Amino acid sequence: MGYATEKAVVLVSGGLDSATTLAIAKSQGFQCYALSFDYGQRHRVELTAAQEIAQCLGASAHKTICLNMDSIGGSALTDVHIAVPITGVTEQIPVTYVPARNTVFLSLALGWAEVLQAHHIFIGVNAVDYSGYPDCRPEFIAAFENLANLATKAGVEGQRMTIHTPLIDLTKAQIIQTGLALGVDYGRTISCYQPAAAGEACGVCDACRLRAEGFKQAGVSDPTLYQT
Amino acid sequence: MGYATEKAVVLVSGGLDSATTLAIAKSQGFQCYALSFDYGQRHRVELTAAQEIAQCLGASAHKTICLNMDSIGGSALTDVHIAVPITGVTEQIPVTYVPARNTVFLSLALGWAEVLQAHHIFIGVNAVDYSGYPDCRPEFIAAFENLANLATKAGVEGQRMTIHTPLIDLTKAQIIQTGLALGVDYGRTISCYQPAAAGEACGVCDACRLRAEGFKQAGVSDPTLYQT
Repeated sequence: MGYATEKAVVLVSGGLDSATTLAIAKSQGFQCYALSFDYGQRHRVELTAAQEIAQCLGASAHKTICLNMDSIGGSALTDVHIAVPITGVTEQIPVTYVPARNTVFLSLALGWAEVLQAHHIFIGVNAVDYSGYPDCRPEFIAAFENLANLATKAGVEGQRMTIHTPLIDLTKAQIIQTGLALGVDYGRTISCYQPAAAGEACGVCDACRLRAEGFKQAGVSDPTLYQT
Repeated sequence: MGYATEKAVVLVSGGLDSATTLAIAKSQGFQCYALSFDYGQRHRVELTAAQEIAQCLGASAHKTICLNMDSIGGSALTDVHIAVPITGVTEQIPVTYVPARNTVFLSLALGWAEVLQAHHIFIGVNAVDYSGYPDCRPEFIAAFENLANLATKAGVEGQRMTIHTPLIDLTKAQIIQTGLALGVDYGRTISCYQPAAAGEACGVCDACRLRAEGFKQAGVSDPTLYQT
């Protein structure tokens, strides 16, 4: 595989996409350092899921960084006064978009990568079956990689940082098929924007709709526990 | 001035450079939203200073975001087991460099700017009398501005974000002269990497040395309280 002795920081949210990304990074031989964020999101059950996923998929370490992005607000995911849309995915950028979230998460991943002397960061962004967030697009990732190589001591010293986005061109169904082939247990992942306290999915938010459609298109049974 | 009705997010650390930056932004007519970070740094007295500075210099609001960058470590400023160098500024990137710090801070400023519908961010980086940090260089700032315009909903909708670095080409003496002309009370600012609990400066760390030399070169008295 060529990467057997290399370290990688992998963003792991507890959801389907990032679990698949971690499985792909492992399959490529990376030593994976899983990173999650307690950023003031609506629910914390995804953080428990992230920890379990990191362990099951053989991450070398798992870290959760706390930051109160809810003090900024501006999103249905960080401000409980803004309702999560439940009427279906639209063409517009939805209110579940969290301002600058992936920029913040990748920046902190970059900091950890520099301390670990890792030159690889994996993020499960996807530009096919997604919610239209600007910070999931290939041009955003390219700009971040360019920034990463100017921002750090490692960059100054000529050690190139690579941002890996193995899901970027896959449909949700392809992501699921890839993960299943690598042994991902999707029953442990939580995609819902507003799950119940025990983790049952609402079934009607954009994340639930995209996920359910993915299982359907992939032709496999959906292991998600839904609220009844 | 042309900017009278415009909002700007201004990074304010409690130090000399960012206080001057805030004064410059105000003098250009911006409504200033001061942003500080409780990021696990060695001392919190700079946060009290930041709050006072924001108030004295007429910021419209002041916000402190908490994030535990000390869980990443890798710097003398976020890991108490790494000593702050006291033997003078060298050519190398010093251990006080915090991995990806300005990338993280600018990312969170970007998030707040988007929520405020502000299109301007001010940061007091300086590439003349500075400690050699990679994330203080003009090429880093240019790369971040490029990223900012791809990362956000505002960017997608064509509202350009500008990163202002009014100190970038100034010597420390010129920064001090600029700030004094704008009424900055440098006695309220704290630059020291390892001040005493009440804020007295050590006088021997790089930040203290650059600051003291700046006052000397500017030909004005140094208002800093030093440990005796």
